[in-house]
Amino acid sequence: MARIDGRAADQLRPIEIIPNINRFAEGSCLIRCGNTHVLCTASVEERTPPHVPEGEGWVTAEYAMLPRANRERSRRDIAKLKLSPRSAEIQRLIGRSLRACVDLAGLGERTITVDCDVLQGDGGTRTASVTGGFVALALALWKLVQDGVLPEMPLKTCVAAVSAGIVGDELLLDLCYEEDSGAQVDLNCVMTGEGALVELQGTGEGRSFTIAEQQALVALCQKGIREIQRIQKQVLGGGRDENGISQQERP
Amino acid sequence: MARIDGRAADQLRPIEIIPNINRFAEGSCLIRCGNTHVLCTASVEERTPPHVPEGEGWVTAEYAMLPRANRERSRRDIAKLKLSPRSAEIQRLIGRSLRACVDLAGLGERTITVDCDVLQGDGGTRTASVTGGFVALALALWKLVQDGVLPEMPLKTCVAAVSAGIVGDELLLDLCYEEDSGAQVDLNCVMTGEGALVELQGTGEGRSFTIAEQQALVALCQKGIREIQRIQKQVLGGGRDENGISQQERP
Amino acid sequence: MARIDGRAADQLRPIEIIPNINRFAEGSCLIRCGNTHVLCTASVEERTPPHVPEGEGWVTAEYAMLPRANRERSRRDIAKLKLSPRSAEIQRLIGRSLRACVDLAGLGERTITVDCDVLQGDGGTRTASVTGGFVALALALWKLVQDGVLPEMPLKTCVAAVSAGIVGDELLLDLCYEEDSGAQVDLNCVMTGEGALVELQGTGEGRSFTIAEQQALVALCQKGIREIQRIQKQVLGGGRDENGISQQERP
Amino acid sequence: MARIDGRAADQLRPIEIIPNINRFAEGSCLIRCGNTHVLCTASVEERTPPHVPEGEGWVTAEYAMLPRANRERSRRDIAKLKLSPRSAEIQRLIGRSLRACVDLAGLGERTITVDCDVLQGDGGTRTASVTGGFVALALALWKLVQDGVLPEMPLKTCVAAVSAGIVGDELLLDLCYEEDSGAQVDLNCVMTGEGALVELQGTGEGRSFTIAEQQALVALCQKGIREIQRIQKQVLGGGRDENGISQQERP
Amino acid sequence: MARIDGRAADQLRPIEIIPNINRFAEGSCLIRCGNTHVLCTASVEERTPPHVPEGEGWVTAEYAMLPRANRERSRRDIAKLKLSPRSAEIQRLIGRSLRACVDLAGLGERTITVDCDVLQGDGGTRTASVTGGFVALALALWKLVQDGVLPEMPLKTCVAAVSAGIVGDELLLDLCYEEDSGAQVDLNCVMTGEGALVELQGTGEGRSFTIAEQQALVALCQKGIREIQRIQKQVLGGGRDENGISQQERP
Amino acid sequence: MARIDGRAADQLRPIEIIPNINRFAEGSCLIRCGNTHVLCTASVEERTPPHVPEGEGWVTAEYAMLPRANRERSRRDIAKLKLSPRSAEIQRLIGRSLRACVDLAGLGERTITVDCDVLQGDGGTRTASVTGGFVALALALWKLVQDGVLPEMPLKTCVAAVSAGIVGDELLLDLCYEEDSGAQVDLNCVMTGEGALVELQGTGEGRSFTIAEQQALVALCQKGIREIQRIQKQVLGGGRDENGISQQERP
Repeated sequence: MARIDGRAADQLRPIEIIPNINRFAEGSCLIRCGNTHVLCTASVEERTPPHVPEGEGWVTAEYAMLPRANRERSRRDIAKLKLSPRSAEIQRLIGRSLRACVDLAGLGERTITVDCDVLQGDGGTRTASVTGGFVALALALWKLVQDGVLPEMPLKTCVAAVSAGIVGDELLLDLCYEEDSGAQVDLNCVMTGEGALVELQGTGEGRSFTIAEQQALVALCQKGIREIQRIQKQVLGGGRDENGISQQERP
Repeated sequence: MARIDGRAADQLRPIEIIPNINRFAEGSCLIRCGNTHVLCTASVEERTPPHVPEGEGWVTAEYAMLPRANRERSRRDIAKLKLSPRSAEIQRLIGRSLRACVDLAGLGERTITVDCDVLQGDGGTRTASVTGGFVALALALWKLVQDGVLPEMPLKTCVAAVSAGIVGDELLLDLCYEEDSGAQVDLNCVMTGEGALVELQGTGEGRSFTIAEQQALVALCQKGIREIQRIQKQVLGGGRDENGISQQERP
Repeated sequence: MARIDGRAADQLRPIEIIPNINRFAEGSCLIRCGNTHVLCTASVEERTPPHVPEGEGWVTAEYAMLPRANRERSRRDIAKLKLSPRSAEIQRLIGRSLRACVDLAGLGERTITVDCDVLQGDGGTRTASVTGGFVALALALWKLVQDGVLPEMPLKTCVAAVSAGIVGDELLLDLCYEEDSGAQVDLNCVMTGEGALVELQGTGEGRSFTIAEQQALVALCQKGIREIQRIQKQVLGGGRDENGISQQERP
Repeated sequence: MARIDGRAADQLRPIEIIPNINRFAEGSCLIRCGNTHVLCTASVEERTPPHVPEGEGWVTAEYAMLPRANRERSRRDIAKLKLSPRSAEIQRLIGRSLRACVDLAGLGERTITVDCDVLQGDGGTRTASVTGGFVALALALWKLVQDGVLPEMPLKTCVAAVSAGIVGDELLLDLCYEEDSGAQVDLNCVMTGEGALVELQGTGEGRSFTIAEQQALVALCQKGIREIQRIQKQVLGGGRDENGISQQERP
Repeated sequence: MARIDGRAADQLRPIEIIPNINRFAEGSCLIRCGNTHVLCTASVEERTPPHVPEGEGWVTAEYAMLPRANRERSRRDIAKLKLSPRSAEIQRLIGRSLRACVDLAGLGERTITVDCDVLQGDGGTRTASVTGGFVALALALWKLVQDGVLPEMPLKTCVAAVSAGIVGDELLLDLCYEEDSGAQVDLNCVMTGEGALVELQGTGEGRSFTIAEQQALVALCQKGIREIQRIQKQVLGGGRDENGISQQERP
Repeated sequence: MARIDGRAADQLRPIEIIPNINRFAEGSCLIRCGNTHVLCTASVEERTPPHVPEGEGWVTAEYAMLPRANRERSRRDIAKLKLSPRSAEIQRLIGRSLRACVDLAGLGERTITVDCDVLQGDGGTRTASVTGGFVALALALWKLVQDGVLPEMPLKTCVAAVSAGIVGDELLLDLCYEEDSGAQVDLNCVMTGEGALVELQGTGEGRSFTIAEQQALVALCQKGIREIQRIQKQVLGGGRDENGISQQERP
């Protein structure tokens, strides 16, 4: 079965990550996964929420879609006075995924808020947000190091994310909107650079799925994430030359 | 390592399901999994939300904790004017799980809302809500059949749920609160009576986890769910005798 | 005229109070007045709201109905983003009634919040909440004494509540839902153990009522409250034996 | 004991009712009871809320205080995103009291909303609102009759309200703010022109009160309401001369 | 073209300002511009919001319409859980206008909140609010001086406001509601006593307007504001006699 | 006095408008005025709000800033449950400005919502939103014409907007953030292609301003708007070649 955009079953959509897209944020990027575009900014604040132990930092995320990110315009959350439950679920996932990377004691008593705003959504916005959110977070941490605020990067690992699904009984990597809306099973993986799982969410939308199918979907994601992490590294590798000078600063 | 309540690593907490606990709801039960107590009611309304195709029905869920369900009192959602994001995430999970069981065309143009209110929470409230919510849902559907509203049960399958986790590098089934709050990995499974997955959510809280660990946790859940479904069947089996007469009716 | 459930005009519905129903709350009970079931928990917090004078404590109440407590499912307050005005009115009544019992200086700088959540409502939920709320409050205070936090019970009096009404020109005690919804006059009394009034609310729903009728309704309530207080005392009397050892502690 | 403003124990504050104070409302008045000033408007809309039976009308009330109606400025409800619970309680009382006067079938399928906005509050705002709200309501009904919309006034009775209380063991009528804030017992009566009770609310603020005290307070209110209703009649009597021509129209 | 109320094109509606209308507010007035009636109160609080520099004060404004201020009843903001966007816009204008008059350092670390509540609206409510709000503000400041809290009036200038518009190609001063709702162009000016602009807002509602028209409208407003400021001075001049004794105090 | 970015006093920042930036919206652009970046989408819906006369259409606007559009991160409106009053004011201005261009009868019974989301803000976000919003609107209308939904463009005129201000007594065009935050006077103009005013808002932030100053600021804006409209035309001119074929379609 040919995919709607001609990709192979285990092929990612083209990914582009433009770092430092926002002039004010400590870290930022625009991530494009096919027609899914997410603006990610990481903001550092010198205080922590009450539930955080003394001496530690905090990393959190917020996720939202612009009103016309989709085929039909959605009303803004503020017009309905309710955070979209879907956004609530997604931003909790992003937050947990990013916190898994950071040594919170090493971060010190500060909060990094990663805002993921979907400018255009064509499937896979939550996984693009994790992947782009990690880049924004790492850039913000790198800035704290360069500014002498932190002695070293408080990163334990890196994360990236992708989806896989079963569409018409075929296992496909990185579903676009048309595929996703017709998928029988949809599974998202967040993984570290070492290939270990950080988050795993699978849903049988049209039918239940066997444990064997679940394992095959995770394997497909693992392959995709390896490629995504190569792109992340290219973007972040440009963050410092051999003298430790950042090349991401604006001229 | 001994568990806090003396259970074996793959042993469930005692489960009790009291059906028809609410005199007004079309279906209801109180489910107790150890010290986790959830009141589940299924309410039938003769209309559907706008997004539902003509001729079909809808199944949805709401989840909330009473203010003192936990060790410390929480403020009510209405006092904060915000649905708890955690509740939003959980009620979406319950709703998807229960919809997976129902033939929505067979249900006809009506909505069943399953309310899961946690009276006391000691870990595993979301999985207890799925397990108990299914019982309430099935009782409500059975009432529609008995009342002649539906010709037959529009159930495609049954579901139950349980959690497993890694605590101090040991794999344990059905975590209670103390275990859950110290767990390194937490994984929830919703499965059908046939042992297929409906929902799967795994989170590395203290560390990431390997694919092998993930598979072992799913296997542990599968074992537990088989036992839970036996209890569900006892409760629901009491719903009709060999003549099809319900024995759950109040005298 | 026979009452719908065969009671005499001045007869209460069967009352059952199960103390310590919640494992976490400092005090709690489940009260059942006929088919009206209210879960009451009393939570102690070591701080007071800003309006409370230094050195004093505070007692407050919250009241809510579960969505399917009634014949028809109600939307949750949080779905409407508004505290139900009826709940607002009722929780103010409960709060005033319970505060009337407590020596706030003797309580010290702490707040007791009594949550009354109606699991099933069949008329008289506000009076059942006052009666059960007092039990939960007294158990919480007793725990503070037993734990050595307070030197003695800061209770000035005890309270209980009941309704009476005029249905088809007959004066009836303790109206159930069917009676209440057809009542011409509805009157609620909160009284102390000594038979003095703490709160009195009368409403002419179908017609106005004479002062003589009002007095007869209060007398009817007074009779009922005397019986209710006997049940409260049995429950609370079990709270300590002659050696001052509580028998309500979990083993 | 002399009262703060020199009144006798059973003496009302001076009452002034200025009818037709608002040029747009179908009925309106400004009521001044001493330093308590409430602007009451009655607005007619040609539709009813969903819960009203076909063929019948509805009467409802809203109550609010301007931010500086009191000694200290209060934040507006909208700034807190919550209807004040006290306002919720009071507007339910006003609504029930006014509905008790109206033949809802005679009103036809229309809603009258009586808005009571406290410009200045010095105790007794809820009873002034009932008294003034009735005048606004009657003027609006009279306008419907004059406009030929209704064949006759759909009024079953008239209502007025006043408070009485126990201050330092003395029974006083119509408490002003200073008296009210030091009162041991506070009781509000809404009564018809025939002296029957419509609403009765008594609260033991500093102590409980005996049934004899309660009865004495109601008697005191009854005396006051008789005088208030004479003033209401003067104002409303001016509403039509012997030819049925309204004298309240602006020239 | 004759105006609806017979005024000349450059003639104001009758203006009346009743100072000290509210017994509790530090400053207050009721302003009537024709049938537009606004109650203005100025409340002093001994604290400032966080964004205010140390040692300085703050002046802010809130604006609202009573539900029946208009031809049709509007729902209250709290019933919609949203501050009316029009009110938000207007209260920002009033706040900026009044802050322009005050030496915030001279005010000291206190906040003056000017509440402008429209009792009846017939066009020009925002300009009447600025004009009346200034009077309330000045009276509150004068009270601070009289009470010895401030050594001198921290007023840099005085402000008043009026609208002008183009109706049927005629330039008219001080539009009433009927004129305003048919106006092609509507322009509001806030000016100081010296005739300088503080705020200027012009809107082409039916058509765009030339720079020459804009200038003519500003000139018309300037003429009107001169007259309004004379009335303000009369009211405020009465605030103290040659001995510095306020004549506005209630006897 | 040299400007912070070396511009002449009457010089605009570089402006770039990228049309059709959003794949789903009927019209869209990204506008960059210096470091101010606004994403504008125009969404067509085949219904109108209740207040719109039958047979006519409606044009409305919404405005918001992403959390990190500014130097410091702002909390989202939904986290505060309040539409920012500043956003409320600005989106009303944008809506009025865009409605002034459109023949609402010619649009037919449909609504166009123009969303202006500030990705990065460096002063002048409201005027950039008007300028970019007009481009998005015109592209959406052109699509309706191309799709045969409308027989011709229902545009009466075009609009663009810019600010001017007084900084240190110098009159400057198109203030950036640093200039704006130190400005004594700030004035925004929305003008048609013919140089007539549609909206005019001037504010004396540090001091009041003379009529002569006001006129000079409007003249400065008029010069700037002429240049902006040339850029708008280039972008929109590309919308159709001499054969009427749109060149803005994606390949």
